Amino acid sequence: MSETLPPTERTRVVREPQRGVYDRESIYKILDEAFVCHVGFSMDGQPYVIPTLFARVGDALYFHGSAASRMLRNLSDGIPVCVTVTLTDGFVLARSVFNHSMNYRSVIALGRATLVDAPQEKFEAFHAFTEKLLPGRWNDARKPSEKEQKATSILRLPLTEVSAKVRTGPPIDDDPDYDLPVWAGVIPVHLTFDSPVRDEKCDPAIPTPAYVTSYKR
Amino acid sequence: MSETLPPTERTRVVREPQRGVYDRESIYKILDEAFVCHVGFSMDGQPYVIPTLFARVGDALYFHGSAASRMLRNLSDGIPVCVTVTLTDGFVLARSVFNHSMNYRSVIALGRATLVDAPQEKFEAFHAFTEKLLPGRWNDARKPSEKEQKATSILRLPLTEVSAKVRTGPPIDDDPDYDLPVWAGVIPVHLTFDSPVRDEKCDPAIPTPAYVTSYKR
Repeated sequence: MSETLPPTERTRVVREPQRGVYDRESIYKILDEAFVCHVGFSMDGQPYVIPTLFARVGDALYFHGSAASRMLRNLSDGIPVCVTVTLTDGFVLARSVFNHSMNYRSVIALGRATLVDAPQEKFEAFHAFTEKLLPGRWNDARKPSEKEQKATSILRLPLTEVSAKVRTGPPIDDDPDYDLPVWAGVIPVHLTFDSPVRDEKCDPAIPTPAYVTSYKR
Repeated sequence: MSETLPPTERTRVVREPQRGVYDRESIYKILDEAFVCHVGFSMDGQPYVIPTLFARVGDALYFHGSAASRMLRNLSDGIPVCVTVTLTDGFVLARSVFNHSMNYRSVIALGRATLVDAPQEKFEAFHAFTEKLLPGRWNDARKPSEKEQKATSILRLPLTEVSAKVRTGPPIDDDPDYDLPVWAGVIPVHLTFDSPVRDEKCDPAIPTPAYVTSYKR
């Protein structure tokens, strides 16, 4: 049995509560399938939402933090953030406009993000980013130098206050609308990866690795 | 010539400034291709980032605002938000881990979001959401009733402080790394729409409309 994360007032799904998901295993599965997150933070009363690559390592999220990190320099206890991850699975076409919807899986993680300082933890975050994007890539590519690691701001958010929201299945219409002569159903949507495009500066003698040619998500 | 939106201190692309895009036409093209946005707002010092459907109408964004709208009830001049839209176009595999990247197109729009009250504007926003999801659908589906329109919170954000950030093309490596025997290139990624799945409760005599069978994005 996967651990349940008791929802807080801030993570409980209020609208469409039946879509709320609070067990760690389901939440982590969504996080691990996505590769882009949207990080929200506030500066001078203005919210900002920045898309960035991320990876989960154990019970923490790591993400690139160039924008947010400018605020973090002197804040050792971190800044409040919201990291949101969204996977879209389909357009839901109901008989009424009002009941049109999306099938989706999203995760919202709240907390204080801190800068990663420990070199070992930073190195492991680089490893996680790379392997998440493309399993097998880390062993092939040149590892980050000390200078490159210093030049990269990586933020860490512990996964303590987190919930997911999931919609699946067909449209749900109001009872009288089921008699309308309107086509209803779902158009599934998913990400597709095309054939890899070799960099023109890449020596043709270098074979395309199997982890590239066989990549699927 | 498309109008250029002069970047403000808040929308100027600071990191990788060559990726900044400030002309209205390019920005609108990204907004119109995406169908999910991430809305950021703050409540009691905590940022929240909520994924939601949206549409552009002229020089404004409209989005569903059930979460944010709870804050808006008594704030006629609106709340500060950031609406971010991200399209992912490819994994960029450099010879070094440090230079791995994504090809993407993103837009960030800042400003104050207000609740849409005028019935005509609300009706037009419903129309825009539906036609954006699936052009042709509006004419087929049952239109929102007065009660449904009242039950839906729609927010409006004028597109005045907005910029885009775009990365395209092959990996850019440090000069000495080009000699490494490492495959480098791009794995393109895009959204695919599968065959529509008819709702089991949908009368088989109702034909699947052409706008559903021929849907492409």
